[in-house]
Amino acid sequence: MSGLLRTPPQTDLPAEFVFIKQHFAKLAGPAALDLSDDAAVYTPPPGKDLVIAADAMVENVHFLPTDPPETVGRKLLRCNLSDLAAMGAKPEGWLLTLARPKTLPDTWFAQFCNGLEQDQKIFSLSLMGGDTTSTKGPLVLSLTILGSVIPGQAIKRRGAREGDGLWVTGMIGDGALGLQALLGKLTDASGHLADRYRLPQPRVGLPLSGIASAAMDISDGLIQDAGHLARENGLGVVLHASQIPLSSAAKACGDKWFETCLTGGDDYEILFSVPPEHEATLLQNPVMATVAGPVPVTRIGHFCKQQLGVTVLGRDGAEMTFAHHGWSHL
Amino acid sequence: MSGLLRTPPQTDLPAEFVFIKQHFAKLAGPAALDLSDDAAVYTPPPGKDLVIAADAMVENVHFLPTDPPETVGRKLLRCNLSDLAAMGAKPEGWLLTLARPKTLPDTWFAQFCNGLEQDQKIFSLSLMGGDTTSTKGPLVLSLTILGSVIPGQAIKRRGAREGDGLWVTGMIGDGALGLQALLGKLTDASGHLADRYRLPQPRVGLPLSGIASAAMDISDGLIQDAGHLARENGLGVVLHASQIPLSSAAKACGDKWFETCLTGGDDYEILFSVPPEHEATLLQNPVMATVAGPVPVTRIGHFCKQQLGVTVLGRDGAEMTFAHHGWSHL
Repeated sequence: MSGLLRTPPQTDLPAEFVFIKQHFAKLAGPAALDLSDDAAVYTPPPGKDLVIAADAMVENVHFLPTDPPETVGRKLLRCNLSDLAAMGAKPEGWLLTLARPKTLPDTWFAQFCNGLEQDQKIFSLSLMGGDTTSTKGPLVLSLTILGSVIPGQAIKRRGAREGDGLWVTGMIGDGALGLQALLGKLTDASGHLADRYRLPQPRVGLPLSGIASAAMDISDGLIQDAGHLARENGLGVVLHASQIPLSSAAKACGDKWFETCLTGGDDYEILFSVPPEHEATLLQNPVMATVAGPVPVTRIGHFCKQQLGVTVLGRDGAEMTFAHHGWSHL
Repeated sequence: MSGLLRTPPQTDLPAEFVFIKQHFAKLAGPAALDLSDDAAVYTPPPGKDLVIAADAMVENVHFLPTDPPETVGRKLLRCNLSDLAAMGAKPEGWLLTLARPKTLPDTWFAQFCNGLEQDQKIFSLSLMGGDTTSTKGPLVLSLTILGSVIPGQAIKRRGAREGDGLWVTGMIGDGALGLQALLGKLTDASGHLADRYRLPQPRVGLPLSGIASAAMDISDGLIQDAGHLARENGLGVVLHASQIPLSSAAKACGDKWFETCLTGGDDYEILFSVPPEHEATLLQNPVMATVAGPVPVTRIGHFCKQQLGVTVLGRDGAEMTFAHHGWSHL
């Protein structure tokens, strides 16, 4: 009579549950309760503060439909890891919601989750929960990340003072150039630039505490984000174009791509201010540790009071101007 | 020379920042750091576990473009609050990401946030952070909620035993009927059903600890969700149709809408199992407290071992069959 309602447990699973078990179960940590409950139950590390960030990515806005599925998930996770890194927090766990177009096959998600599995190992965190729904629009992914930090040691955007140096990790512009390469607008023989666009290197573990007075990650372009950091501190900032670190692949693109490097976004490097008393040590040995290995750090300018906004000085000492500051999300 | 880069701080704000400050700043709690940082910094209540859930809502899937913006935000928040309520957790804070179509005006978000402001007061929590981006598709909202619970007291889906009663808060089916009313498929003279579709009543504060052996909230239809609860416990469940609580507005729709009530979803009531030794007290006084006031609770069936899946018995004692179990998200 009621066969419809009394199928055995294993075959009774709605498509959503099968989808979650099939792809996401392997990512779930102890807090996730097998991804079968209404919520995760998580015991925070005793005596720590939590650092929590959320970021969304939309197909054709933040990634390309032709991007390998392995890197799409990793890119989103890494953008969020970069937010934790900017505050000096240790990754703990993450939640994911996805609005899925029916046209996207299961095989896409299998690869998407394989990529995330690799990054969970590299950055020592696990999936806590999430939600899956359908959409008639593009794929939308939203990720919330939790990290922990010793109370009082989170590095915030506010804290820089006049005279502090402005420092940056890694190289600037590779991600923005990588997007242009993938769009066919420039040649990227080694594939290094496209790799950096698809797979940013979050600076998790960067020991900012006791060195940096303020920090943020660069996601929307160096100039725009340096402007945010200055504004949050009621200061201006002066950048020296010749000191901005570029990879050899970026240099090979030529001077006409310099503006793209400084304003294109997708760097996920850490921008931080360092009080003068801590700069000597860094200048002597401009390398810092991260969980993924050492990263070079470079002094690219300083904070000032006289002039608000961002001033970029060229090799000749003259101010440079740019058509755009950076990426706007609206 | 570099006017483009040196505008004063207040006019220098990118559109995304203006949007966030204008609408969301009033919702931000202390952890949000004025919504100007990379992440929130949150000190969890000492000695508590955190309960964390994430849910996404998509225009035309979970809400209608004609729904009042005030209720769209509140509905999403309340769906997440319902997840906390099912586990017996106290709300602490939430994060929101939104993928915004350019066609949606600022006035829509002003109303959206006004609704959320009301609910923050009712349910005692505040915004911690989030992200705003654009999309060429429908509006996608993703909300992560954090709650706290005494360690060991979170009520999970697993824990029900053979012979436990199945109980439910409030009334079943009003939300599902409300959607049909808004689609013009039935008459809802009082507007009660549409109200319940647009604004679920999460049972935050329901004192499940020490009473319930397992619990979940009903979002995808009573029958489907009762099936999930039974399956998670390796059991079957028998429901008595005549005991399922219906509002007078639902009863007025007539018997032909009964299946919609049981399978349509959007209830956001709590489904919980109660061991026999705790049932007498509840049967004597079938009302439980929530932060929004007392709510009736009703025994609608029991868990069994003989028969897996869900069995619904009609008034005549015969098994009932239904075309669908409930809502599937994929």
